[in-house]
Amino acid sequence: MIQTGSVGGGPIGVFDSGVGGLTVLRALRAALPADDFVYLGDTARLPYGTKSPESVVRYSLQCADALVRRGIRCLVVACNTASASALGTLRLRYPSIPVIGVIEPGAAAAVAASKSGHIAVIGTEGTVAGGAYQTEISRLRAECRVSSRACSLFVSLAEEGWTEGRIVEAVARRYLEPLFAPGAESADTLVLGCTHFPVLAGAIRRVLPSEVAIVDSAASTAAAVLGQMRLQSQPTASGRPARGSVKWFATDGAARFARVGATFLGEALSPDEIEIIDL
Amino acid sequence: MIQTGSVGGGPIGVFDSGVGGLTVLRALRAALPADDFVYLGDTARLPYGTKSPESVVRYSLQCADALVRRGIRCLVVACNTASASALGTLRLRYPSIPVIGVIEPGAAAAVAASKSGHIAVIGTEGTVAGGAYQTEISRLRAECRVSSRACSLFVSLAEEGWTEGRIVEAVARRYLEPLFAPGAESADTLVLGCTHFPVLAGAIRRVLPSEVAIVDSAASTAAAVLGQMRLQSQPTASGRPARGSVKWFATDGAARFARVGATFLGEALSPDEIEIIDL
Repeated sequence: MIQTGSVGGGPIGVFDSGVGGLTVLRALRAALPADDFVYLGDTARLPYGTKSPESVVRYSLQCADALVRRGIRCLVVACNTASASALGTLRLRYPSIPVIGVIEPGAAAAVAASKSGHIAVIGTEGTVAGGAYQTEISRLRAECRVSSRACSLFVSLAEEGWTEGRIVEAVARRYLEPLFAPGAESADTLVLGCTHFPVLAGAIRRVLPSEVAIVDSAASTAAAVLGQMRLQSQPTASGRPARGSVKWFATDGAARFARVGATFLGEALSPDEIEIIDL
Repeated sequence: MIQTGSVGGGPIGVFDSGVGGLTVLRALRAALPADDFVYLGDTARLPYGTKSPESVVRYSLQCADALVRRGIRCLVVACNTASASALGTLRLRYPSIPVIGVIEPGAAAAVAASKSGHIAVIGTEGTVAGGAYQTEISRLRAECRVSSRACSLFVSLAEEGWTEGRIVEAVARRYLEPLFAPGAESADTLVLGCTHFPVLAGAIRRVLPSEVAIVDSAASTAAAVLGQMRLQSQPTASGRPARGSVKWFATDGAARFARVGATFLGEALSPDEIEIIDL
């Protein structure tokens, strides 16, 4: 069933620096319920966002190698920092495997959703400073205006599991109100440009004007992977069990991975299921 | 003026994994205003809290070596993780230089402050899981009961500069109310066991019962260093200018160090003053 590096059989490989990518995996499992997945969280070296681009490329290649050795048929880079820095290198290294990051699908969905051409992007400090969404949005639609803001507390709120209620809404209001001040110039689309943020989407929705579209890059990435799978010759779910499996790998801390990861995955996860590997 | 490794002349060396240790430096400068300091933030490798103890010891030795080469007469480990893991190794390596961490002074101050013998400790996930304050408090007063809680959001709030107002008080209430529920069993002393937390002390004070004592381990550490300096033969401020100097070193990101660090230091800091070094 597992073929190394070939399009067709084999699981879909997903990696991130930690647990945030589990929102992408969750969206992928919803889109491709019968498929098998391999998830790798490089928890020993998180966060990637503060590392140099050279280090992020090196780590990403190590993560991808570990997944390719497990016979994946598609590689999903479920990490904004790695998507911004390493996608080109990964595509060169694995020409026979589709490599899909989170930035291109998120940017494309935002460009499609925005009527006014003013798009707001929120992410970590590293993602916002790197400007990868801005670059990709401009490439797709040159006249788009992009406003962005780092929302570092959203990461901690998501990891703490404080995803609903008064505190998260107050934080969201403080971060987002300046981006969506009433007026003709206000953005009409918000990109959740961090894999941690989809778990806060409910609270974020409640503090935004109702006309603002929210683009969840985890969902957009899952849609891109689904499109890619349909391009492949073998139909993705034919003759497969109703619910595919997930193999779990991390580079450190199975207990924390399982505990914090459950918020992002949306279901319980046991530390015993997670294999700790060296890269 | 600078003598390598000798008690007497030379600046006081302070290191941390990042900017949190600046609260310790601030307290040190208040206690020893005429003294010179060298501060090193190992920002390229932060956070230490998620690294293995072996890595933390290795990083700490590298930080200390860089400071000792600059002729320090006292080494302050302004980082809870490094204090918990590396203090013994550092003391063995530099027998002629006093090495002072943040945990021993904080624990001693808490034991002195607590009447009921029930002490609450808050810190990062790593500090709380490691139990270093608990161990040190029990060593000083075996019958003490220690309750602890990781307060991860406090780190992000402090780094974001959101140190006052409705949001930080709501977060503090959510973290601390369970530790200080009314009753005979409630803790009477709270240790701020993370160098980020002193900047939130005002907000924390406002949500605590008035009878609870707050132990700021930055201030306790400064007091310990002051005591150590008084033990040394040369008086610390004789014939010195009214306000000592600080030399700044970091291993990455001078701009962020200066911007975020200002909150912790309590005064402006220019990126131009910060020298980036490799360890």
